[in-house]
Amino acid sequence: MNDTTRKGLLPAGLADGLPPQAKGEAILVERLVAAFDANGYDRVKPPLIEFEDSLLDGPGVALAPQMFRVMDPVSQRMMGLRADITPQVARIATTRLARAARPLRLSYAGQVLRVRGSQLRPERQFAQAGVELIGAEGIPADAEVVLLAVEALQGVEVARLSVDLTLPTLVPAVCRGLGLDAEASARARDALDRKDAGALVGFENGAGEVFRALLAAGGPAAEAIARLERLSLPDEAAAMRSELAELVATLAAAVPDVLLTVDPTEYRGFEYQTGVSFTLFARGVRGELGRGGRYHLSSGEPAIGFTLYLDSLARAVPAAAVPERIYLPYGTGFAAARELRRQGWRTRAGLVPEQEPKAEAERHGCSHILQGGAPTPL
Amino acid sequence: MNDTTRKGLLPAGLADGLPPQAKGEAILVERLVAAFDANGYDRVKPPLIEFEDSLLDGPGVALAPQMFRVMDPVSQRMMGLRADITPQVARIATTRLARAARPLRLSYAGQVLRVRGSQLRPERQFAQAGVELIGAEGIPADAEVVLLAVEALQGVEVARLSVDLTLPTLVPAVCRGLGLDAEASARARDALDRKDAGALVGFENGAGEVFRALLAAGGPAAEAIARLERLSLPDEAAAMRSELAELVATLAAAVPDVLLTVDPTEYRGFEYQTGVSFTLFARGVRGELGRGGRYHLSSGEPAIGFTLYLDSLARAVPAAAVPERIYLPYGTGFAAARELRRQGWRTRAGLVPEQEPKAEAERHGCSHILQGGAPTPL
Repeated sequence: MNDTTRKGLLPAGLADGLPPQAKGEAILVERLVAAFDANGYDRVKPPLIEFEDSLLDGPGVALAPQMFRVMDPVSQRMMGLRADITPQVARIATTRLARAARPLRLSYAGQVLRVRGSQLRPERQFAQAGVELIGAEGIPADAEVVLLAVEALQGVEVARLSVDLTLPTLVPAVCRGLGLDAEASARARDALDRKDAGALVGFENGAGEVFRALLAAGGPAAEAIARLERLSLPDEAAAMRSELAELVATLAAAVPDVLLTVDPTEYRGFEYQTGVSFTLFARGVRGELGRGGRYHLSSGEPAIGFTLYLDSLARAVPAAAVPERIYLPYGTGFAAARELRRQGWRTRAGLVPEQEPKAEAERHGCSHILQGGAPTPL
Repeated sequence: MNDTTRKGLLPAGLADGLPPQAKGEAILVERLVAAFDANGYDRVKPPLIEFEDSLLDGPGVALAPQMFRVMDPVSQRMMGLRADITPQVARIATTRLARAARPLRLSYAGQVLRVRGSQLRPERQFAQAGVELIGAEGIPADAEVVLLAVEALQGVEVARLSVDLTLPTLVPAVCRGLGLDAEASARARDALDRKDAGALVGFENGAGEVFRALLAAGGPAAEAIARLERLSLPDEAAAMRSELAELVATLAAAVPDVLLTVDPTEYRGFEYQTGVSFTLFARGVRGELGRGGRYHLSSGEPAIGFTLYLDSLARAVPAAAVPERIYLPYGTGFAAARELRRQGWRTRAGLVPEQEPKAEAERHGCSHILQGGAPTPL
């Protein structure tokens, strides 16, 4: 291994985006943000680095072990490199934009960094794009956000999209309604997280039967809702079920081509959610494309949003067509070249006199060459 | 100051991009990169963070004191947050793309971070966008890169553009040609950097006279070239002057609307340049828009490129027009809303039944409202 090779090595989990993938990702991000914009979501751009305290506010604390930290020589305070953009958008909504009209619709796109990759996502840097709808709650707000995710993903030609809905508040409501104590509730949570029906026994007030039925209810949304509606649930949990059923009906009517599934006991990764939550997949593509749900800002305001992960998404979209490019032999004037670009041509200019212009054009991967003032296919 | 306010404070030199500026910057970047792409420059996307050694290779070392550093827990090696993207593009060209056809045309856009702001640029995070043309040298290559900067900047409607050309290799060539020793050369460099004609005395072989004439030669390009051509210069320096004259003639013919100036002794900030270099300004706008020039990669390959600074550039472009937005009263169906967006409308939906839909539309800054199925101006 020579010195140049060694210097070319990047830290694990960090990578160079090369042509054409780097362009593909940038175009993907801009098309997503354009879909957010068309739906009334205004873009914000928080900094890559800010005071650690701000980044660890509220749900952000879950990523504390994943955050790189540096000392700020100016303030002598610790700063963190963001591992997630959502807490920054929440900060902007509760401070700089505290007085902006509600509901407040914000979008963002940018890079995040993490100290270690995970088994599912070895990357330590990846791009996120998403929205937050702040100061609104209820089914129309939930539906707007889920449908926006669908519209944005279908807009970048993600095929076989599926939305997996979950209700992380349902099991706690059942526990409260059936009078389970903290120990029994924790035991139920643990068994449900492991999807271990066999461990869901020995609970008071028929709770074990309800938990097993919830666990078995998951699947395609229409059937799952029907199974849930046959259950006898305490009032608070029953109200949540009604909301979920209403949301499913709204979504199914709006986007009948999208597979909707319901997993009523899914909880991991949704610990901070306060209502309906969802995960986005493209069937047949590794990794989730994004996730979202309802939560509360530190100010107490209700919010709902989602985040898309560009690394997974890049695997779910069709490869961009190789664009046509025209070779301009040495000596082609600037005005002629600019005019071709104005017409939409992508040019590549010869910088030294060519022996064989066509061979040079081919060496540069061009599809056309300028001959006698006219684009000519190679 | 309450807790929320305190948490909203960002470290000095770091800022939130808010609507509509955040969108404006993103659109600006994409339009610049599209101009690079149309000229055959393929986008690369190096990571925000990589091993310190790689970032400090070659010209990158100039920014060493400005680089945040973090320990990589995986490799136990120091990593740096990039303070400049150019060294990363050079690394990609000499490693991953070492065997790609030359000349190699690469473009990039992204954020950089610096430990401290400067008086001229207090920001500690800003966006850069630029190109590198690798494995080509000579006037056609120089001209391509300068003209690309002009085309990209004029494409985003920068008015009153000026290109300030400099030749950082000229004074060293004069010193060599007139046989000045290291001490005399350093003294000349120092006086020229301070533009102190009075200190340019006491040199051997008529060098003082040449230096004073070089210092006085700067100004609009046609006159500056005429003044330079009247000077008697040693052969190597005279050859550089001829190249500069040829480049100026090419640029003046191609973009007669751009102000070209020449400062033949400008050197600070161009210490690593190996030939013609340039700074881009919009007259009347604070700060340079970008800079570039010829240099050599660590592999010895010739290269020429430029970097644009998005913070200065944002001050030089006209504000984007406020886009029209339509309010969709509560209950508007998803299909109807999506169809409006397909037609190019930006929608904002009511999420609760309105008492007065028009008042709500106005509160949300909409220009239109959907009434009886048709967009109606407010």
